[in-house]
Amino acid sequence: MRVLVLGGDGFCGWPTVLHLSAGGYDVVLVDNLSRRNIDTELETSSLTPIRPIGERIATWTQLTGKTLEFHNFNVAKDYDRLLTLISERKPDAIVHFAQQRAAPYSMKSSFHKRYTVNNNVNATNNLLAAIVEAGIDTHVVHLGSIGVYGYSDVGMKVPEGYLPIKALGPDGVEICKEILFPANPDSIYHMTKAQDQLLFAFYNKNDGIKVTDLHQGIVWGTQTEETSRDEKLMNRFDYDGDYGTVLNRFLVQAAIGDPLTVEGSGRQTRAFINIRDTVRCVELAIINPPKYGERVRILNQIAETYRLIDLARIISETTGTQIIHIPPLRKEADANDLSVENCNLLDLGLQPIRLKANLIRETMDIAKKYAWNCDRSKIPGKSKW
Amino acid sequence: MRVLVLGGDGFCGWPTVLHLSAGGYDVVLVDNLSRRNIDTELETSSLTPIRPIGERIATWTQLTGKTLEFHNFNVAKDYDRLLTLISERKPDAIVHFAQQRAAPYSMKSSFHKRYTVNNNVNATNNLLAAIVEAGIDTHVVHLGSIGVYGYSDVGMKVPEGYLPIKALGPDGVEICKEILFPANPDSIYHMTKAQDQLLFAFYNKNDGIKVTDLHQGIVWGTQTEETSRDEKLMNRFDYDGDYGTVLNRFLVQAAIGDPLTVEGSGRQTRAFINIRDTVRCVELAIINPPKYGERVRILNQIAETYRLIDLARIISETTGTQIIHIPPLRKEADANDLSVENCNLLDLGLQPIRLKANLIRETMDIAKKYAWNCDRSKIPGKSKW
Repeated sequence: MRVLVLGGDGFCGWPTVLHLSAGGYDVVLVDNLSRRNIDTELETSSLTPIRPIGERIATWTQLTGKTLEFHNFNVAKDYDRLLTLISERKPDAIVHFAQQRAAPYSMKSSFHKRYTVNNNVNATNNLLAAIVEAGIDTHVVHLGSIGVYGYSDVGMKVPEGYLPIKALGPDGVEICKEILFPANPDSIYHMTKAQDQLLFAFYNKNDGIKVTDLHQGIVWGTQTEETSRDEKLMNRFDYDGDYGTVLNRFLVQAAIGDPLTVEGSGRQTRAFINIRDTVRCVELAIINPPKYGERVRILNQIAETYRLIDLARIISETTGTQIIHIPPLRKEADANDLSVENCNLLDLGLQPIRLKANLIRETMDIAKKYAWNCDRSKIPGKSKW
Repeated sequence: MRVLVLGGDGFCGWPTVLHLSAGGYDVVLVDNLSRRNIDTELETSSLTPIRPIGERIATWTQLTGKTLEFHNFNVAKDYDRLLTLISERKPDAIVHFAQQRAAPYSMKSSFHKRYTVNNNVNATNNLLAAIVEAGIDTHVVHLGSIGVYGYSDVGMKVPEGYLPIKALGPDGVEICKEILFPANPDSIYHMTKAQDQLLFAFYNKNDGIKVTDLHQGIVWGTQTEETSRDEKLMNRFDYDGDYGTVLNRFLVQAAIGDPLTVEGSGRQTRAFINIRDTVRCVELAIINPPKYGERVRILNQIAETYRLIDLARIISETTGTQIIHIPPLRKEADANDLSVENCNLLDLGLQPIRLKANLIRETMDIAKKYAWNCDRSKIPGKSKW
């Protein structure tokens, strides 16, 4: 089974490539290395010393005998290369990570808002248009975001994409419908994931394209089984204010002996998933494509929810690090409840990794090992909105 | 009061520019003349002989003494020019027509899908990002489309943007909410108008941008009071399969003695508005901006709904032209009901023009006058989806 991974050099993309390759899939990856260039722009780098993509691939082949075909181009711009690749390789599934994925980065300036919208929306539309033009039968597995639902109190358990509602019919009689959950994104980045939903729904309805949209929570951890096999395969570990996710940043703060900085009261609730589960979920989605004629399948890719202050306390208790509160950087509710359905992936067999001391310690060990590479001036968030 | 009209050379844009100028507004218009270039691409042209924008403007100034400031650039691409213009001119309102506006054109090929998404989404995002960056207080009046609601039977009266619903809360108790009406667009073009809604909602929530989104029905007619004042001011009249709207195309068929071609059964219901009402509605929206902190105001800009076969019968009875049925070109319901609220614009004072023989005859007279300029091979729709 051949899988094309768009954005295959990134934080979720690279471990997914290796996980699928290890699982016997024939993997073709595409990346324009934009995430590495953004490191240059932001004058930061992965805490872990990641190797160039060519060296990563050569190491994997040496270790396993498995080859990985790599193409360096921009999915949002180089439509002709995408079309040619899809037409020639006829992948059974296409995993789509080829988007700018940080909310704070998307809100830094007009340039960053415009880059994020232009890049993310055109990448998705190019992919869908190319599938139609190539006329191939494939399954798009897209990494969405739990943030499309929004983090204000929605007053209900967030379902997996679709919401049963009642509304008044023309004659005043109540009717029942199921609708796409009303999007309420809190950043330009999350807004583009809501725009993606409209693209998927349209191409699904009009062209019968099979799509699974994985609304993922905040990822923590860094290594997977495969990336741990050789230091040259190591995954990236972002700790900066734009790309670092909250738990990983807490762990770096603990590793370098800085206090854990919690924005506002810390009573903001978020959904989390470990990177090892990310790669398993993507494979579960590939193995279980929607049926012909089925609407876009939306799965909430999360393991559990935590209030940020509770996360900080777990790290604080494990490491003895102090917690301090700083003013919030985003316009958001200071406290929210978040209750999210995640039955679908559990039903498909996911046994999610939960935040436990031993796993946090594994990530903490990596943070400590590479603490020498940390520029602490990069940790505070600088993007305010 | 200064108004910036983006897309001020187009079918709705040009009459709006003149109507606002006649009404005493200080009008600045922007257009990259893309619609004229698309005529070149499609090897077609307006039935009416429209003049270059410079001549149009000179004629208006000569006739009225009023000046119009014109800038030729691409709103979707030339962000810096847009930002400079907005920062310097500080318009009180910005009317946003700067989008590719034909559903059939948007579905012709991958190129056309990609052009439409790229152009329309980036135009709107550039505008909103520029307003935030310029830090000006203005009001965006955008031309949306009634097509965002979709033309399948929604089983309810289509409200003006927002739908009151009931859904189950986390404890199984029913809760009431008001949500953006779930979009169900039937073409890439309409899909971009639904993506626009997400952009407006985000910038409204995050930055307090005041937005009125006018979900317009299918426009018919060609001239307005102002464009009728001189032949050099004449508005465009599209009759081709991509850009011509259904009633105008029937009128051209009648004018050249061809039968009226109705796709499928003709029991598809659509909403209509006359171009003279378009310009009035835009002015009504400008005069009545949303309050600070108010959510995006959505108004359904329509006068009435008709089944296509009933429209054809009106033209047929008025002109003695025969009706023939042809296979449908689009994937859509062969018959649908459409009931649309339009109280808001009526409450603001709109007295909509209804399809009556005398007004149809006015448009028919124009179609007859310029029938010599008609290339009948361009009338059939060629874009199938």
